[in-house]
Amino acid sequence: MDNTIFKEKINQAVEILKEKNIDMWLTFVRESSMMTDPVMDMISGVNSTWQAALCINKDGDTTAIVGSMEEGNFKKPGLYKNIIPYLKSIRDPFRDYIARKNPTKIAINFSKTSVLGDGLTYGMYQILLDHLEGTEYAKRLVSSEEIISALRGRKSETEVALMKEAIKETLKIFDEVTNYMKPGMTEIDVANYVRKLHTERGFEAAWEEDHCPAVFAGPNPNGPHEGPSDKVLTKGTIINMDFGIKYKGYCSDLQRTWYILNDGETKAPETVQKGFNVIRDSIQKVADAVKPGVKGVDMDTIARSYITQNGYPEYPHGLGHQVGKTVHDGVAGMFPAWERYGNAPFMPLEEGQIFTIEPRLPIEGYGVATIEEEVYITKNGCEFISPPQKELILVKP
Amino acid sequence: MDNTIFKEKINQAVEILKEKNIDMWLTFVRESSMMTDPVMDMISGVNSTWQAALCINKDGDTTAIVGSMEEGNFKKPGLYKNIIPYLKSIRDPFRDYIARKNPTKIAINFSKTSVLGDGLTYGMYQILLDHLEGTEYAKRLVSSEEIISALRGRKSETEVALMKEAIKETLKIFDEVTNYMKPGMTEIDVANYVRKLHTERGFEAAWEEDHCPAVFAGPNPNGPHEGPSDKVLTKGTIINMDFGIKYKGYCSDLQRTWYILNDGETKAPETVQKGFNVIRDSIQKVADAVKPGVKGVDMDTIARSYITQNGYPEYPHGLGHQVGKTVHDGVAGMFPAWERYGNAPFMPLEEGQIFTIEPRLPIEGYGVATIEEEVYITKNGCEFISPPQKELILVKP
Repeated sequence: MDNTIFKEKINQAVEILKEKNIDMWLTFVRESSMMTDPVMDMISGVNSTWQAALCINKDGDTTAIVGSMEEGNFKKPGLYKNIIPYLKSIRDPFRDYIARKNPTKIAINFSKTSVLGDGLTYGMYQILLDHLEGTEYAKRLVSSEEIISALRGRKSETEVALMKEAIKETLKIFDEVTNYMKPGMTEIDVANYVRKLHTERGFEAAWEEDHCPAVFAGPNPNGPHEGPSDKVLTKGTIINMDFGIKYKGYCSDLQRTWYILNDGETKAPETVQKGFNVIRDSIQKVADAVKPGVKGVDMDTIARSYITQNGYPEYPHGLGHQVGKTVHDGVAGMFPAWERYGNAPFMPLEEGQIFTIEPRLPIEGYGVATIEEEVYITKNGCEFISPPQKELILVKP
Repeated sequence: MDNTIFKEKINQAVEILKEKNIDMWLTFVRESSMMTDPVMDMISGVNSTWQAALCINKDGDTTAIVGSMEEGNFKKPGLYKNIIPYLKSIRDPFRDYIARKNPTKIAINFSKTSVLGDGLTYGMYQILLDHLEGTEYAKRLVSSEEIISALRGRKSETEVALMKEAIKETLKIFDEVTNYMKPGMTEIDVANYVRKLHTERGFEAAWEEDHCPAVFAGPNPNGPHEGPSDKVLTKGTIINMDFGIKYKGYCSDLQRTWYILNDGETKAPETVQKGFNVIRDSIQKVADAVKPGVKGVDMDTIARSYITQNGYPEYPHGLGHQVGKTVHDGVAGMFPAWERYGNAPFMPLEEGQIFTIEPRLPIEGYGVATIEEEVYITKNGCEFISPPQKELILVKP
């Protein structure tokens, strides 16, 4: 196991604790291979069967209290300065440790806004309260949401480099799909080809294989999260693909739109071209506006209102999400102010975050226009890390 | 996807709700491919990105309230009679549905005792309370622990048949390891051979690959959950292996003990044989006592006290856990009354459950004696589903 990124992330967490003035960040887990707190993938890399408390502190102390059977597993990677083993119950060593550190604020992993900040189960929360019974510390528990948001969002140089590689490999596969696709094939044929390519190259799919890739054959394609079906690629319709890989632990996520020419056609009908252009231009308008400090909800509005002003219905989802170790990463999102997105649309965007931008619109009788790009937020703006799709890709009849 | 077992399990859940007199069992999830409530693997088989409420009722009604983008995914397998899609927020359709059903008790997935019954995160619990705000229903929430315990524990015929196959394939691999092992090899050599065999045969490891198989070379082996190392298999020492596969979604979990003969030896030294016999006999004593209604803590005591009475230290873990879709399955366990096991040691065992029995003891200067068998609880007792190891397996020098 290469520990470089784990070490980078734990050091970064200490800095974030200083910035947010939180004394201790506590990740409290059990059977974490079965019920994985998503932060384990950032700050541990080792799972714990017994109850374990991973404590990262503002003062730089990092301590893992773990079952004695698992002491060796946690010592080996050397991520935590102190490993405290226990046999029958974590309670006493845990209470002793907390009393010794005497934190004013203890951040724990719950969040209404983000699944990535919500790794503590309700039963484990109750156990934690039991362990802290009779102390003041239960009253000092706060959400770690802003720590996790910063930690996952602010990509280190190593992380950005890996994500660029992931995009490069993904675009290669998109290009190969362009050469492979022919009218008469089914969505499943295309998906199987993509699976063959990424498997041969040793890349995992970035999300669940049953809809990664998702392939959408017009004129009446499946919904955005449905898997490929036996719908046939037909001349004179649109086809889209949504696909990403996991490259050395980091995800890519892209969409492209193709048009399958009819016999005798040399370009797409005007109505198809217009829908495509609106999508393409809506992405550029968002990219022009993105910079640290803006809110995701406003970015969503830019694309959403441009699309509706051009006479199309609004897309039935958010404009874009962060990408990282998971395909839906980070906490802040370019989402509309819908209840189900919680606070995520209102969190200011930060330098170092990587977002998708992925609007869509239906083109009656042809299919759907949809492009998904990834942008990296710089000090003053943003950069495309996926060279953006500027033109419809034409497939010969 | 073969839905037979999902359908069996959902029907079984309705029967369990009748037995326990609970009106509704609610599984409330989001981004469930990232943060998987373990029951999804029993009652869904499809993940949900948006908030979803899977409701199984005592009256036989099964309803899934899911994001509109995911409606198709949930309709396809046909597990839920009613699919209610929503766009911006689950709140209104969810509140309407609950009001219509008007349940007296709503079981939700939290449990201090078992990770398998603890799939609801603390943030999702808070969201659920928000959704139910201003109604009486928040006061009607109870733990689904006993539902999940029964559902996972009571194996259907289809499930038992698959688990017997899993054991058969696993024992084959153990036999091949017996023929393969030689002094001078490392733990990693043995582990790689096992990985090669199960991968060739298309079986996943039953738990994390880094310690499945776990290989323990004497005289000073690693801890029980540590991965194989470059420790060398040495003449005149003990070797153990802990290994299982996932066979069509169901796990096996077995341990065996070998002794590597010294030059000139034809059998193990008496001290090794004695330790082995104590472990073997402790398992038989437990198997003789297991039947529906007994408590796991008493089964643990049978083995633990037999081992200590014979002059060995007690094993630093529980005697046995249930096995099923996950390697640590069910809720009730043959565990000691240690705080970290919560209520699990005190739940009466039930017909249809499958348990491991896996005591261990150290043999100074040689290694560890440990055997792990699986037993199936019948109406009046139990049956070994893994033909038990009765003799030390001898490896030639």
